[in-house]
Amino acid sequence: MLRVIFLGTGGALPTRNRNPSAILINREGELIFFDCGEGTQRQMMRARTGMMSLTSVFITHFHADHILGLPGLIQTMSFQGRTKPLVIYGPAKVKEFACILSNIGYYNLKFEIRAVEVHPGDIIKRDGYSVKILKTEHSVPSVGYALVEDSRPGKFNRDRAIELGVPVGPLFSKLQNGIPVEVEGKVISPDEVIGPSRSGRTIVYSGDTRPSDDVRRISKGADLLIHEATLADEKLDWAIESMHTTAGEAAKLAAEAEVKKLILTHISSRYTEDPSVIYNDAKKHFKNVTVAEDLMEIEVPYSK
Amino acid sequence: MLRVIFLGTGGALPTRNRNPSAILINREGELIFFDCGEGTQRQMMRARTGMMSLTSVFITHFHADHILGLPGLIQTMSFQGRTKPLVIYGPAKVKEFACILSNIGYYNLKFEIRAVEVHPGDIIKRDGYSVKILKTEHSVPSVGYALVEDSRPGKFNRDRAIELGVPVGPLFSKLQNGIPVEVEGKVISPDEVIGPSRSGRTIVYSGDTRPSDDVRRISKGADLLIHEATLADEKLDWAIESMHTTAGEAAKLAAEAEVKKLILTHISSRYTEDPSVIYNDAKKHFKNVTVAEDLMEIEVPYSK
Repeated sequence: MLRVIFLGTGGALPTRNRNPSAILINREGELIFFDCGEGTQRQMMRARTGMMSLTSVFITHFHADHILGLPGLIQTMSFQGRTKPLVIYGPAKVKEFACILSNIGYYNLKFEIRAVEVHPGDIIKRDGYSVKILKTEHSVPSVGYALVEDSRPGKFNRDRAIELGVPVGPLFSKLQNGIPVEVEGKVISPDEVIGPSRSGRTIVYSGDTRPSDDVRRISKGADLLIHEATLADEKLDWAIESMHTTAGEAAKLAAEAEVKKLILTHISSRYTEDPSVIYNDAKKHFKNVTVAEDLMEIEVPYSK
Repeated sequence: MLRVIFLGTGGALPTRNRNPSAILINREGELIFFDCGEGTQRQMMRARTGMMSLTSVFITHFHADHILGLPGLIQTMSFQGRTKPLVIYGPAKVKEFACILSNIGYYNLKFEIRAVEVHPGDIIKRDGYSVKILKTEHSVPSVGYALVEDSRPGKFNRDRAIELGVPVGPLFSKLQNGIPVEVEGKVISPDEVIGPSRSGRTIVYSGDTRPSDDVRRISKGADLLIHEATLADEKLDWAIESMHTTAGEAAKLAAEAEVKKLILTHISSRYTEDPSVIYNDAKKHFKNVTVAEDLMEIEVPYSK
């Protein structure tokens, strides 16, 4: 399972339809946040995601609309008996923020909050995947993230194994686990019956940024690119000034990177009533594009 | 107009139906908050209350569920061009909180935030009303609030004025404005034609507390008492331990104070699916009681 749940898809100003930024990833039951705007805990309740499997929160930058859901979420998890540490990754200011988190109310947290400052180029190794830190260009220190699953073993070629004389049974498992076996005096190596390793899935999240070379580079062939598209193309001047990306720019980047799917988020409150201009601007450059909506969920399949 | 808009009626844990505590009062177009839990700005959008007329926020205590809506609301008002100062009243920790407010994200506020520490017995004089600070009993420093409108002038007795020989016209206005007039050599004082002054309306808000003598005292004859009723009566032990009030206790207090109307709020997440036990426990002791729901609005009428 690699499921992306869009809990907040709005820009800096939330609207009736869009919570501020919050993207929850459920990977094999582990919950990971990319940004966590105000109101996220109620969005989790609406989406029935649970909270206890949350291991870590990756913050792209410390603008309020990306972080204000954390203080309440932390209190709620503490009330619910959480004792497992929570790790918060983010650029400069993450440690200061974690300190504020513990002091904003009269908290009596029963679990530890670990703050980890990240920098472009860093790779955080996790169980079954890595998170790569990407250089982005926003008005305050910021990063993007790529979740890159570990490679999976190649396919076991059952027919070839039988052809080589391996009897169906426990020796198959040995070979599948990478252990050579001996059959009638002849050693058969796993390479002979297992195909090349297959890559895992990759999800890239831009955070708030002007179009970034690092995001484009890491997105090459990615299964899913979640890119901000705060503004429509006609607002390019304002996108440049406020250091955001237009829908057309995001779609061009997706096309250049040949990603499999593009989802646009961080939609300005200007487009509350009708976000179709965002979709139309993007569609000109990239076909497989969706404009995110709050509580939208998608499963990211293996491409092979 | 004296309108109460319940934007958050939940307890410490929000639910799908209930935002954390936030009560907005619209008095003649001026907006005043009593507590401001996470997600309040989106609740304001849903209730279409506007934000620009907000003058002040009265915080009962600094538990997270009563305050976490402020950072986002402040950022949004700043984006929208607010320049008028915002005053935040509260018990101990209010100045520290105001300081955190300005440092939690990369804020660039275009208006001033003034923090005022209040103590039981204080009276804050405002234009047309006062806010009295009440002693409450919770697990951290806490207060309750009573909004008490100034008295209105007595009724003008038109018939009596005519009887006294005052000609219908500008002299009526003078008398209504408290100015004596002379008619045919005789001085007529306003007292002769204006009845006794009539009291304004009073709204009392308990915040989180065990039943409080001060809240009971100030509520005597109040038009509206908004009291917390976190728990049903069967959870009295837990109410005592966690320093909350049960529905029955709140209703008894309302009956003793002979308030005109009681609205219960801060309803525990235990009663998400069915809050009828809260209503039933209260109804035994006080008839004119309502269990608040999110986005409920009521107008408080003059009693005479």
